[in-house]
Amino acid sequence: MKLLQVDSIQSVEGKFAKYFASMEKKQEEVGLRQVCGRYLAEDIFADMDAPSFRRSVVDGYAVRAADTFGVSESMPVFLESLGSIQMGQASTLFIGPGQTAYVPTGGMIPEGADAMVMVEHIDRLGENMVSINRPAAPNAHIMNIGDDFHVGEQFFSKGHRVTAKDIGLLAACGKAQIAVYRKPKLLVISTGDELVEPDTKPGPCQIRDINAYAISAYAEALGAEVLDLAIIPDEVDAYREATMKAMEKCDMVILSGGSSAGNKDFTAQVVGSLGKPGVVTHGLAIRPGKPTIIGIFTDREELKTVIGLPGHPLSSIMVFDVVVGTFLRKYYLGNEEDPRAIHAKITENIHAGEGRTSYQLVNLSRGEGVEGHWERGWLAEPIRGKSGAIAQLARAHGYVTIPQGSEGLRAGETVEVTLIE
Amino acid sequence: MKLLQVDSIQSVEGKFAKYFASMEKKQEEVGLRQVCGRYLAEDIFADMDAPSFRRSVVDGYAVRAADTFGVSESMPVFLESLGSIQMGQASTLFIGPGQTAYVPTGGMIPEGADAMVMVEHIDRLGENMVSINRPAAPNAHIMNIGDDFHVGEQFFSKGHRVTAKDIGLLAACGKAQIAVYRKPKLLVISTGDELVEPDTKPGPCQIRDINAYAISAYAEALGAEVLDLAIIPDEVDAYREATMKAMEKCDMVILSGGSSAGNKDFTAQVVGSLGKPGVVTHGLAIRPGKPTIIGIFTDREELKTVIGLPGHPLSSIMVFDVVVGTFLRKYYLGNEEDPRAIHAKITENIHAGEGRTSYQLVNLSRGEGVEGHWERGWLAEPIRGKSGAIAQLARAHGYVTIPQGSEGLRAGETVEVTLIE
Repeated sequence: MKLLQVDSIQSVEGKFAKYFASMEKKQEEVGLRQVCGRYLAEDIFADMDAPSFRRSVVDGYAVRAADTFGVSESMPVFLESLGSIQMGQASTLFIGPGQTAYVPTGGMIPEGADAMVMVEHIDRLGENMVSINRPAAPNAHIMNIGDDFHVGEQFFSKGHRVTAKDIGLLAACGKAQIAVYRKPKLLVISTGDELVEPDTKPGPCQIRDINAYAISAYAEALGAEVLDLAIIPDEVDAYREATMKAMEKCDMVILSGGSSAGNKDFTAQVVGSLGKPGVVTHGLAIRPGKPTIIGIFTDREELKTVIGLPGHPLSSIMVFDVVVGTFLRKYYLGNEEDPRAIHAKITENIHAGEGRTSYQLVNLSRGEGVEGHWERGWLAEPIRGKSGAIAQLARAHGYVTIPQGSEGLRAGETVEVTLIE
Repeated sequence: MKLLQVDSIQSVEGKFAKYFASMEKKQEEVGLRQVCGRYLAEDIFADMDAPSFRRSVVDGYAVRAADTFGVSESMPVFLESLGSIQMGQASTLFIGPGQTAYVPTGGMIPEGADAMVMVEHIDRLGENMVSINRPAAPNAHIMNIGDDFHVGEQFFSKGHRVTAKDIGLLAACGKAQIAVYRKPKLLVISTGDELVEPDTKPGPCQIRDINAYAISAYAEALGAEVLDLAIIPDEVDAYREATMKAMEKCDMVILSGGSSAGNKDFTAQVVGSLGKPGVVTHGLAIRPGKPTIIGIFTDREELKTVIGLPGHPLSSIMVFDVVVGTFLRKYYLGNEEDPRAIHAKITENIHAGEGRTSYQLVNLSRGEGVEGHWERGWLAEPIRGKSGAIAQLARAHGYVTIPQGSEGLRAGETVEVTLIE
């Protein structure tokens, strides 16, 4: 038997760094309406103070706070009303002692005033006179200049992935056009004489192509662009030609399928024949995911990567999540954030894999009322299944990582669950 | 002062139910490559057993397990090899006692065999003979028919929102085309003489339109389609005409801005003039979010809704999340799941609002090594700020709900945090 030399995750990361650390990321500009889900290629700063003028946060009357000190229902103060502030217009009014003016929510506080009294605490006494029956503290109901943010304040950094809750602040910062990293372009090729398209009923010994569709969905959810996916037969020339053509059009070609030893050699042979340096990794010290082939090519105008994923659906998705996704985020999208994780109590022992990092799918559920704080915490139940099974993935909420060299996990232990979507 | 009559969340839900419970949801079909993020309009069942034939999960030799019982390195068994199974092709081989055949990973187990021996434990002795030095248990390294899933097994229900991890299983079930609920169509109209577009530097007393962009991003993240957004001036005829036109094109018109009392009346007046029954809610017993106006219209060919959101950015986003989003998910997208929540320890007391449900934005961080299990749990720190501020939203990870009539939250208490994205 030929022994497969396997690389640790760290070793693979080192290989990627060697070739990609100096690669310049491509950028493009998108509008504010298109920026959700994209990764920023610029740091975002406030271009002005917000608010840029003293605003009222209530409907009411602008006053000098000192005029209201000590007033009450039984002893109101009477103020001369100078009129109303109009929305969107600068006020030329000046509020002197004993004077006031109406200001709607969002309106500018006129000079001289330093507090707002809500209309609920006001009585209008004719055209030019109001009585106030509640004292107002200085700055009451006023947003002062810069109370929201100050010019030059930094909100987001390069590599941040924009979500819906960021859009308001980007709008407030005047970012109608935003520089983002260009989406890495992928092509997914499935190989296997046993594969049929999902719309086909498999004949005896055939199976539907799961991996290409699953991987494409993951890649797009991450922020990549999947140009196309195709099934090609297990035939070396067709395989090589399809991969060669795909490399011209995209940054990364993902080869899916080929889980048998013959196919693995076949994939390594094809990847090795595409250019230099060629195959940099013949296998990974992870479980699942060992039969992964990684090729890097520096002999094109641009750097190219070809990834041969394991044939088992779960393995291929784990490798995509742990290795390929991390790589694409780091080198194409400028994002090195840790994936979102939550803490849970593991319900069963999980053994460590010998000499490799293991990933165990888990299902999350709410714990019952036991053991102090954990009464309302999460329980993580390992999902066991044969490695070819796909149904378990849809039932999984995430996975726990058991690092190489660790002693495994004990039932009841608190673990970190990386969520999958 | 006119007293604003406010509705509880439950009361508003009742009003929605009265008009929308019998509304038939619209559907459409999309391909497997477009279904991520959509809501299923059909239950998804397995259309066949998977695998549909006995598959090997390793590269190796198919044997009768009984032939290998008791063998060892020092006492191997010699079996006659009948040849190789080809991928994707039904096998006509029959493995009798003393016989074996090569089967690659994913290949069909030939009749007669009931276990696989990995190639690592085989020695090839010429063309037609192998020796096996390790016993195999029945079913070893075999996926039997239905080991992944069985025909008729249900995986997803109507209303489920499809994520990347579901795609593989949909492919395995042969769902190349999937029935989903049509996206509700929205138009967002901002009003306010003080508003300018984000690409404009605001003049004195002006502010950039934040809400329309933030709400549109939230609506799209939820799975709605935002046809357009526009700013119109505070002028009753223009406002009414724009809203009327918008209603023809979409399911829901969202009116943003108009946070002053004058504007609120103005919005209520416009919404009330659009048809019957008109304004069903003049305000909500929630904080933030009280000045919300909801209009429902049954006098068109289809049901229409007009929502007047509060002017303060945070308030409008909270109302969208708590009320509008829940409504759209339930009546247009068939989804009544609880929003995703995590548990955390609140770091400060939070007072309950009098007679209303309060929502408090929080920032999540990892707790330090104190107090048993919580040493690795989340801490939720309330984000305090004036209600007009937008910067705090980008810093928030979620919010806690303090129900009407509760006693508030005590520092150190375990709370449920609804995540916002």
